Amino acid sequence: MNLEAQWVTGFVDGEGCFHVGISKHSGMTMGYEVLPELTVVQHKRDVQVLHALKAYFGCGVVRTNHADRMCFRVRNMDHLKNVIVPFFDKHPLKTKKRIDFEFFKSVLSMMEVGDHLHEAGLMKIREAASKMNRGKLR
Amino acid sequence: MNLEAQWVTGFVDGEGCFHVGISKHSGMTMGYEVLPELTVVQHKRDVQVLHALKAYFGCGVVRTNHADRMCFRVRNMDHLKNVIVPFFDKHPLKTKKRIDFEFFKSVLSMMEVGDHLHEAGLMKIREAASKMNRGKLR
Repeated sequence: MNLEAQWVTGFVDGEGCFHVGISKHSGMTMGYEVLPELTVVQHKRDVQVLHALKAYFGCGVVRTNHADRMCFRVRNMDHLKNVIVPFFDKHPLKTKKRIDFEFFKSVLSMMEVGDHLHEAGLMKIREAASKMNRGKLR
Repeated sequence: MNLEAQWVTGFVDGEGCFHVGISKHSGMTMGYEVLPELTVVQHKRDVQVLHALKAYFGCGVVRTNHADRMCFRVRNMDHLKNVIVPFFDKHPLKTKKRIDFEFFKSVLSMMEVGDHLHEAGLMKIREAASKMNRGKLR
């Protein structure tokens, strides 16, 4: 299945989610793990579309999400910074998900300079993450 | 907001719904109303995307759907036949929603020859409608 850039943007505008998870993790410097990810969830009947996204971006994984739902997910920081961000900079989202993407990018930048490794930085990241994915239909 | 065809297809692959409603309606020949429609539902924060779809297709309406959700909707038979169907014939959906679209088209064709006005035809339409929108994430 061949995808075009605008189809990918339209589909992610509909079904994608830029998310920054922050959870307790005793093995981490600050006791918290900061986990930025792009996910696209579909019913398993459309798993081939998720594999097409994986092939299109050349990164990420396709996994079971929950029950009969599957997801395409990118968590690798290099792939997020060098593949996902440049793609959505070049092909901007048209929904308000674009704002989530901008916060997402800001978190990646903060992590790049190690903000997640000290308290003030972690607070900045928390603040950005808390502004994402408001008013979603879920 | 300017939309491109592939973005529209990608977004409808994600958020669109081809649906054929069949409901009791005493004013109709067979006592039932057959109502094919394309809808795209969004949180009201993204109502501008729904207006952009309306402008792109040059038909349909933007209405409140439920609570804080809005929808773009096309019900007019001429617009469905002459605008919506040719568009998705030219720019095929990539998810299994394509199958719903094929059933949707078949219902429009049956209605064009008046199948909704006699019992055997109405049963054919019911059968096609019952095969649509299975396995959806809702």
